[in-house]
Amino acid sequence: MSYSLGLDFGTNSVRALIVDCASGDEVGTGVGKYPSGTEGILLSANEPLLARQNPLDYPAALRIAIDKALKDADEHDSSFSRASIIGIGVDTTASSPIPIDSNGNPLAMQPRFADNLAAKCWLWKDHTAHAEADEINRLAKEQGRPYLEKCGGTYSSEWFWSKILRCARTDQEVFAAADSWIELQDYIPAWLTQACEPQRGICAAGHKAMYDESWGGWPAEEFLHELDPRLAKMRRKFLRAEPSSTNAGTLSQEVGLPIGIPVAIGLIDAHAGAVGSGVRPGVLVKIMGTSTCDILVGDEATPNIPGVSGVAQSSVIPGIVGIEAGQAAVGDLFQWFASQVAEKSQSDLSELAARLRPGQSGLIALDWNNGNRNPLGDSQLVGLMVGQTLHTTHAEMYRALIEATAFGSRMTMERVSHYGVPIEEVIVCGGVAEKSQLTMQTYADICNRRMKVSRSSQTCALGAAIFGAVVGGAHDSTIDAIKAMTGVREQVYEPNPKAVVVYNELYELYVDLLNAFGGQAQRTELGSLMKKLIRIRERATLPASEVP
Amino acid sequence: MSYSLGLDFGTNSVRALIVDCASGDEVGTGVGKYPSGTEGILLSANEPLLARQNPLDYPAALRIAIDKALKDADEHDSSFSRASIIGIGVDTTASSPIPIDSNGNPLAMQPRFADNLAAKCWLWKDHTAHAEADEINRLAKEQGRPYLEKCGGTYSSEWFWSKILRCARTDQEVFAAADSWIELQDYIPAWLTQACEPQRGICAAGHKAMYDESWGGWPAEEFLHELDPRLAKMRRKFLRAEPSSTNAGTLSQEVGLPIGIPVAIGLIDAHAGAVGSGVRPGVLVKIMGTSTCDILVGDEATPNIPGVSGVAQSSVIPGIVGIEAGQAAVGDLFQWFASQVAEKSQSDLSELAARLRPGQSGLIALDWNNGNRNPLGDSQLVGLMVGQTLHTTHAEMYRALIEATAFGSRMTMERVSHYGVPIEEVIVCGGVAEKSQLTMQTYADICNRRMKVSRSSQTCALGAAIFGAVVGGAHDSTIDAIKAMTGVREQVYEPNPKAVVVYNELYELYVDLLNAFGGQAQRTELGSLMKKLIRIRERATLPASEVP
Repeated sequence: MSYSLGLDFGTNSVRALIVDCASGDEVGTGVGKYPSGTEGILLSANEPLLARQNPLDYPAALRIAIDKALKDADEHDSSFSRASIIGIGVDTTASSPIPIDSNGNPLAMQPRFADNLAAKCWLWKDHTAHAEADEINRLAKEQGRPYLEKCGGTYSSEWFWSKILRCARTDQEVFAAADSWIELQDYIPAWLTQACEPQRGICAAGHKAMYDESWGGWPAEEFLHELDPRLAKMRRKFLRAEPSSTNAGTLSQEVGLPIGIPVAIGLIDAHAGAVGSGVRPGVLVKIMGTSTCDILVGDEATPNIPGVSGVAQSSVIPGIVGIEAGQAAVGDLFQWFASQVAEKSQSDLSELAARLRPGQSGLIALDWNNGNRNPLGDSQLVGLMVGQTLHTTHAEMYRALIEATAFGSRMTMERVSHYGVPIEEVIVCGGVAEKSQLTMQTYADICNRRMKVSRSSQTCALGAAIFGAVVGGAHDSTIDAIKAMTGVREQVYEPNPKAVVVYNELYELYVDLLNAFGGQAQRTELGSLMKKLIRIRERATLPASEVP
Repeated sequence: MSYSLGLDFGTNSVRALIVDCASGDEVGTGVGKYPSGTEGILLSANEPLLARQNPLDYPAALRIAIDKALKDADEHDSSFSRASIIGIGVDTTASSPIPIDSNGNPLAMQPRFADNLAAKCWLWKDHTAHAEADEINRLAKEQGRPYLEKCGGTYSSEWFWSKILRCARTDQEVFAAADSWIELQDYIPAWLTQACEPQRGICAAGHKAMYDESWGGWPAEEFLHELDPRLAKMRRKFLRAEPSSTNAGTLSQEVGLPIGIPVAIGLIDAHAGAVGSGVRPGVLVKIMGTSTCDILVGDEATPNIPGVSGVAQSSVIPGIVGIEAGQAAVGDLFQWFASQVAEKSQSDLSELAARLRPGQSGLIALDWNNGNRNPLGDSQLVGLMVGQTLHTTHAEMYRALIEATAFGSRMTMERVSHYGVPIEEVIVCGGVAEKSQLTMQTYADICNRRMKVSRSSQTCALGAAIFGAVVGGAHDSTIDAIKAMTGVREQVYEPNPKAVVVYNELYELYVDLLNAFGGQAQRTELGSLMKKLIRIRERATLPASEVP
């Protein structure tokens, strides 16, 4: 028996998962919470867009998680021993860059920066750098750089260079003290292996830092120089980015495990979730939690896809193109409505909403309460709902929000298919997939596709463990490891043909609203939209015998 | 001392009010509820658009109301006696037509129609006749009739001919049994005076039944014939319509008062409310309850105003033009959100909403949950809200709905002013005016006008009583009676100049949404609307010191 350890650094905690390398069976797991801030997040009363983390939290929480996982495995699997762990894989949130000194240590460790939020980890959902993102987008267009083609046409305020540039613009002291910046996904393997010069993973590099071999890897020095000369200087020391099937070194830190275990290069949590759900050519994995991330893999012919967040070589599976798209608010959107507007539990709302027929609410919504990631790549957008009457219930509104996210998902599927990437199977994982049958059925009906649910409830950690198994030599290739170590559940959500017909009509209205308010088509005809909604509602409320 | 009795037939009950003819002092009041249906309204499980009333409820409830009012006056005013009542005035909801037999009795009195909803009073808010309204509008345009010019360009499904035609199309038995149809406002005086041939009031005739002296009164026989030959036949017996300052006859029913008191011709409740609030040239009265009705009077030069529900000679004050506009849901809209969505009391929501600055919610809404009465005259519209984030609160949404109704009100004011009718003073009455300081202040800020509140809390009944005083001979003219018998409260809502600036910006966005979704301008540029909302929100949340 051989085992792999997956380490999944989420937004509020880190999970350690011990997995059987042959079957993917999960034999031990443990969670360590980040001790600082509000559930691990450092916030600022003055800057609502700010979200940071204390880098010192990661080793502390990691040791707790590993310790729990080991005890759990000891208890449940008599074949397990620490010595049978053959590899370690790591995934983290991204883009979450950290300023580091010349020894690779976070500046946050220095007492003078103890209270400086700029010296911490700039968490993925920090949106303070939108002006800098605008600047980067402008410059890339001015200089005719190809960088934006790989990220759907718009570089985000959430991403690596935007955040570093934001620091350069707003905190000279921290910026000057930083020898370099590193993604969290690369910091953890560097810490575990005590590497002198940190390895950089192609997953975050490709999707968040404009890295592509076709233009020589990292963005050109002249480009970075124009933004800030110090960025160009920093870039010179960056190593070539590698896929997660590459060994980053061997374990050299005391974490309760034998020294010397191979550690894989890190990757983004959503991408690890896709691997843990069984992503491979023809399979779209949807990781549905507070937000949604869609992951697929293409082939050599896969083009850049406008309106899709990222296309990056080897970012998911080495040697083939990884494609990432997403929606900025999904579970968060449902939870907002339930807790802030209706003040009801989601299960109460779901129960009522599940009794409604498609179209019966007469409502349609845009799921942009947290901006739109795809296809518009615009965080400066807001939510919209149309169709309320004096009889509209909060259950109807809740259902309309679920439908809105499904329309957004359908749009991504259609976009990707249109550019020649086949989708033969959809596998969903994450909290929403497991908890909400209503959401899953709605997605099946709106996307007119069968929805399967990943077997594992810890797909990100499982995906990390799969790369641990790969660098530990348990499988010949990443795809072999994925096939052996993942699976789906028995329950499959099948599209209901009658619902599909209704939702096809509503989807057209969603597209009209997206075009009008997303600024894609400058002028859209909306004068008949409300009447169409009323007609759809009227048909949906007819007794079954009278439906034409 | 002389007194007048005002009778106000509302949606759920009738109010009797005894008023001092010299001062307008209210010396006695009483309410009688309609015993049938749900709070006096007959509903149908199969037809959500249906709303009817039992005509037998009116005399029963009226006797109770008068009895209470008399006792109340006896108790509170030693000068009062039944013999000192010199006139009776009547107002009712409209358009609420009733099918009657050749003796003027409602068909609902016949046992064979006891359970037939088509034989009842078709209450103002019954919307079953929208297909028939479409037919009337089409025919009026085809035949080049001037009828629509006086009602804002669109004849409504709520109105007289639409409802009668609906009955002709859907219930042959009731339609064939009806000798004629009569507005509730005319049925009550006819019942009180036991008139052989019912008088018809110009208020409902002019605003709801296409009556205008310029085209010979009632719509042409050829026009009605084309809709249904039986309508043309019925029309032949209709008397000339008269203003409410005209005597309809004298009291002949036993209602606890001396026989022989003059009874005024009836009018629409909202118009009576305007009279009881002090309407006169230059004064706009807003009657704000579940819906809002705006009433003004013009002069000889007053043109037809596109997008305003009605312009009718002598409908409010004899000899001058009455103008009616309105909004289909105001108090109803706030109550819907509070009870159905947030499940909070309006006072709780108001308290939170009042703490917000204009623009701070980042939201904008269309107040069309019950359709749009003005300027679009389209009941087939629905609500809309834009600007929701993951932090939006229900108090913010509630406030956005209040603002939406105020934007709608501003639009009517601008429209009327644009067509040359001066608005020098705004007086508001009705439940919302008295209960919601937040709403009144928001209206002052959005319309950039001082808002006064009517002194009386029973302005409709007071308006009816004013006409009772006029037909009883207490004043030389209706305007003299209005001046003597009405007034406003001390508290006046003044516009806040800073709020006015913010709301001017938001109003532009409201107009854009109205144009786009109302089908007025086929294609409207909405691609920057969300960004404008975000900018307005950001400025609204700046500390006062940083506001540019």
